[in-house]
Amino acid sequence: MNYLQFDRERPLDLILLGRVAIDFNPLDYFKTLAQSETFKKYVGGSPANIAVGLSRLGKKCGFFARVSDDRFGDYVTEYFDNEGIDTSRIRRCENGEKLGLTFTEILSENESSILMYRNDIADLQLDVQDIDEAYIKQGKALLISGTALAASPSREAALKAVAIAKRTHTPVFFDIDYRPYNWKNSDEIAIYYSMVAAQSDVILGSREEYDLTEALIEPGRTDAQTAVYWQGRGAKIVVIKHGKQGSTAYTCDGNSYSIKPFPVKALKSFGGGDGYASAFLYGLFEGWEMMDCLELGSASASLLVASHGCSADMPSVEKVRAFIAQCKKEYGEMVARS
Amino acid sequence: MNYLQFDRERPLDLILLGRVAIDFNPLDYFKTLAQSETFKKYVGGSPANIAVGLSRLGKKCGFFARVSDDRFGDYVTEYFDNEGIDTSRIRRCENGEKLGLTFTEILSENESSILMYRNDIADLQLDVQDIDEAYIKQGKALLISGTALAASPSREAALKAVAIAKRTHTPVFFDIDYRPYNWKNSDEIAIYYSMVAAQSDVILGSREEYDLTEALIEPGRTDAQTAVYWQGRGAKIVVIKHGKQGSTAYTCDGNSYSIKPFPVKALKSFGGGDGYASAFLYGLFEGWEMMDCLELGSASASLLVASHGCSADMPSVEKVRAFIAQCKKEYGEMVARS
Amino acid sequence: MNYLQFDRERPLDLILLGRVAIDFNPLDYFKTLAQSETFKKYVGGSPANIAVGLSRLGKKCGFFARVSDDRFGDYVTEYFDNEGIDTSRIRRCENGEKLGLTFTEILSENESSILMYRNDIADLQLDVQDIDEAYIKQGKALLISGTALAASPSREAALKAVAIAKRTHTPVFFDIDYRPYNWKNSDEIAIYYSMVAAQSDVILGSREEYDLTEALIEPGRTDAQTAVYWQGRGAKIVVIKHGKQGSTAYTCDGNSYSIKPFPVKALKSFGGGDGYASAFLYGLFEGWEMMDCLELGSASASLLVASHGCSADMPSVEKVRAFIAQCKKEYGEMVARS
Amino acid sequence: MNYLQFDRERPLDLILLGRVAIDFNPLDYFKTLAQSETFKKYVGGSPANIAVGLSRLGKKCGFFARVSDDRFGDYVTEYFDNEGIDTSRIRRCENGEKLGLTFTEILSENESSILMYRNDIADLQLDVQDIDEAYIKQGKALLISGTALAASPSREAALKAVAIAKRTHTPVFFDIDYRPYNWKNSDEIAIYYSMVAAQSDVILGSREEYDLTEALIEPGRTDAQTAVYWQGRGAKIVVIKHGKQGSTAYTCDGNSYSIKPFPVKALKSFGGGDGYASAFLYGLFEGWEMMDCLELGSASASLLVASHGCSADMPSVEKVRAFIAQCKKEYGEMVARS
Repeated sequence: MNYLQFDRERPLDLILLGRVAIDFNPLDYFKTLAQSETFKKYVGGSPANIAVGLSRLGKKCGFFARVSDDRFGDYVTEYFDNEGIDTSRIRRCENGEKLGLTFTEILSENESSILMYRNDIADLQLDVQDIDEAYIKQGKALLISGTALAASPSREAALKAVAIAKRTHTPVFFDIDYRPYNWKNSDEIAIYYSMVAAQSDVILGSREEYDLTEALIEPGRTDAQTAVYWQGRGAKIVVIKHGKQGSTAYTCDGNSYSIKPFPVKALKSFGGGDGYASAFLYGLFEGWEMMDCLELGSASASLLVASHGCSADMPSVEKVRAFIAQCKKEYGEMVARS
Repeated sequence: MNYLQFDRERPLDLILLGRVAIDFNPLDYFKTLAQSETFKKYVGGSPANIAVGLSRLGKKCGFFARVSDDRFGDYVTEYFDNEGIDTSRIRRCENGEKLGLTFTEILSENESSILMYRNDIADLQLDVQDIDEAYIKQGKALLISGTALAASPSREAALKAVAIAKRTHTPVFFDIDYRPYNWKNSDEIAIYYSMVAAQSDVILGSREEYDLTEALIEPGRTDAQTAVYWQGRGAKIVVIKHGKQGSTAYTCDGNSYSIKPFPVKALKSFGGGDGYASAFLYGLFEGWEMMDCLELGSASASLLVASHGCSADMPSVEKVRAFIAQCKKEYGEMVARS
Repeated sequence: MNYLQFDRERPLDLILLGRVAIDFNPLDYFKTLAQSETFKKYVGGSPANIAVGLSRLGKKCGFFARVSDDRFGDYVTEYFDNEGIDTSRIRRCENGEKLGLTFTEILSENESSILMYRNDIADLQLDVQDIDEAYIKQGKALLISGTALAASPSREAALKAVAIAKRTHTPVFFDIDYRPYNWKNSDEIAIYYSMVAAQSDVILGSREEYDLTEALIEPGRTDAQTAVYWQGRGAKIVVIKHGKQGSTAYTCDGNSYSIKPFPVKALKSFGGGDGYASAFLYGLFEGWEMMDCLELGSASASLLVASHGCSADMPSVEKVRAFIAQCKKEYGEMVARS
Repeated sequence: MNYLQFDRERPLDLILLGRVAIDFNPLDYFKTLAQSETFKKYVGGSPANIAVGLSRLGKKCGFFARVSDDRFGDYVTEYFDNEGIDTSRIRRCENGEKLGLTFTEILSENESSILMYRNDIADLQLDVQDIDEAYIKQGKALLISGTALAASPSREAALKAVAIAKRTHTPVFFDIDYRPYNWKNSDEIAIYYSMVAAQSDVILGSREEYDLTEALIEPGRTDAQTAVYWQGRGAKIVVIKHGKQGSTAYTCDGNSYSIKPFPVKALKSFGGGDGYASAFLYGLFEGWEMMDCLELGSASASLLVASHGCSADMPSVEKVRAFIAQCKKEYGEMVARS
């Protein structure tokens, strides 16, 4: 069943709105960040990773963003160009704001932490002036990264994009993507997450992220209650993630579909979510069955946590499929489907 | 017909959220502000005026506000206490923010302008921490002044209050109360006005204010289209004002009721809206017919524009009724209703 | 003896740098500010008062200032024009900053307090770009009001003006004029006051103000030590005020001259210092003996505390002289000199 | 001749005030910053490098600084501890300010550029509260890095430290260390540089840096004029650098001493100045002849530009001496002295 109707005439598959940043991952890992001495740089930021992921899967993406007016701004823009992402709506900051940086500490395969540079940050300078209806009408769907809601003026730029998406019948995907930085308090989080969730067709988040979203409405919901509530506000698909326990997609016809992670030797504990999102959304655009969407998402997630980078290691369809085939051969057909 | 159900058990009639300020109106008026030399000070600010108005009409009001931690903060708090308004949720600012000031230029009875002091302003410091469910549950209704949405953290405080009101089945009144100060751009206005309007039971505004509210949804609506749209989102009563041409209340049963101003010799061109709102809402709380609500509102508005002050000249029920009776005697029963 | 040499070719007597503001003094005084209901507006701010005072005494003044871009900015500029003060270097603010306001509480003739509006304030927006050598070279002397040092960018504008004054052999007068507003801590006060004092030819201040100035150099000095120290840095005249006990001018030839207040029925406890400064500096420009300068200053101070306004009540030479003559007739020739 | 008298009783040789930061230098250099993929991290920031340099030469340093309250703050503090630098006056920031980052682009041995992260920066949060007389009295000298003057509150902290140094007879070294970041305009630079230069015993800067310092006093001076002027204000030694043409120390007895760079194969074009300063100041503390101070400084500078890091490659006395000896053997005794 197709839960969403995409306008096939529109040239872009997905327009993403949110941050582009740079990751510095240690090459001498399994040490503290203070001890790690050499770092490899990657384009990062959750929506940037998803855009690269979808592009490598063959989908055409556009991006609303602000980047720094310096060599790092050049770097990420050129990287997007090389990946085939349309950068016509990526603008430079005008007051010296800098691109976000994420320095990763990889203590072990299960323990990672990050040190973020997000003061006076480029991505949150996205402005209502940057958002135009003409561009949104070129996209089959719009993805809002929740981090874009953390502060003005990016917050209002995102809310304007959602308003225009509704007016132009463009499905809205909401990747809650909670990051504690830049938010002032939990009430703000609840207010703005719930505002976008109520206007979204597809919502992706962890249980903790839904709890943040629902804090002013009704705390303590079960997954099923969460799904019913947001479907009552218009959502077609509500995906709720539980880390290593797997995730479930609740569809507006009352069904639910669950997937587990694929077995893999992890190198780091992050990046999986962006692999998941890009591959899952790829399936949606292709009109696949929900279980197939989830399987591709879960396999991509597993590949990502086993890699050193995020954007740089986003796989092709062939690579994910080969990985799934190999896992099934090794562990059985139901390896992730439980 | 009663469009709204109030919980008669709740001790406060209306809890208002918004600004308390000070007006300085010239005593030597019909001059430019530069030429006017002596000024009389009044408690002001649209929601403050409405609170005083409703109190004088016999209703019990509470108020969520931040005021300055100085003698002007003392002044407005004591004034509210004297008027019988509950000031338990009026908190002092902690970082030197000052109470808003409005200096009025009265050039003629038709030409007024204002010079506002609203930099680093006390009222916009209202914070999500200031808003508590226990208090909202004591009010039969909650009134949000649109000016409170102009900037953070007051913006989120107002949105939190609305969220709690919805959760606690407290009717929400939205007085759009547009002031150009403090807003950054028209998209912001459209985003936040529409967000509160979509959750309100009663909306009060001028045609221009509805245009601002609807700018990202569908510009150029007629009054009837506006009423139908917001009633579709849950509003029971949509009041649209057209200045001297009068105003119309559209009710959710598909009816509409119009009123014109009462004839009066104006001294100034402001303050009428707050007299209107307080008397109209008084009628709603009393369960009156819509036309009677509107007539009281229109009569109070006329009394206000003929007075030097705003809060200080809010009339008692007896005074408005006497004025209506006198107008009807002089100009005929249908003086404002035609 | 002439302690200062003025370049008689220069068309302006004094160029002042600092704040122009508006005073609102209650007409129904001897009440708290909350109780006072009617206010009279005056041009105010210490250097503005001194400029008006000097103009009325027949001297030509210029002014470096920023004022608000609104009707209050019009008001003060027009007022200066009418008083004959050159306003060519008074610029409007560009980001909505407002003119400072001072609301006065007059509880009794000895107890006054003020409530100041100085958030996002126009005068502290004076910028290094506003200061030009061509103008400074037109003035026989430059007066820096210490309040201009309280924050950037006005702080650097004042320091630049001093640097140019030194380069162009323009005597610098420093009116310490301490106001607690806008300063962040006492170290900042000590740093910037001492920086300007060390480059000044004439310094005017109260004992408390010199203590603030010397806090990082050597706290606890006597008046004589203070005078010797600043004269060692180049000062020609050091005036130290002790309120009702009178004041003393220490000159660089090792002499000192003291004056007491003239007997007068005070209405308020402020404004005297500005009357003092303008009349004292008038004497300096005229090349008078030090005692005559002080006597005129003290008499003007007494006239001011007996008046309702400050700028509006600055006296002419004739008026001060008549007042001195009358006091001497009534109380004896040495009434203030003893 | 000893131009400076140090109090041998004081336990610390030099107390430095300024920034501690982190450098990320590319391992795959001779590429653009966008193309470089791997980076090595070093403790950086000019005064931090000088402190490490002096420590390795056997001098005991202290440091007034603010660092970030995160793992990078841990990193630099631990690094200082390991180098034997006293970190008792290195405090953590309290509002999320971050340590400065410098990403270096090394295009060739002559072309380097840097991308700095200095928004909301830790080092400029140094506050007057952080500066205490007790500590300054423990240092034989105080070094102010000019970058600390770029913005408040660090600016006032530096000015307070200078005031206390004067009061406690602690010689002041001023390393102008101009960085365009964080300064608002050239007048500010001139005001604050000249303010500290006028109170300094030793000034170190390039010709361009002295031009910035003198812009409001007298532009266009020769080196000799510059030296005479600042010696007239109290400086004992004025060092003026001309890059590859070498540098000259002007002493207050009217002499001057010049040195040239040692021949070396450069890897990068920065870091030399910090090697120079640390070794030159080492010579001063040792009471060496001026030419010997300069020779050690110049040799250390040459070693630094041939190294990948800055702080990490600061040499020991033995290493610099061995390098000098080898150069003299190869190129002749006067290799740098010509």
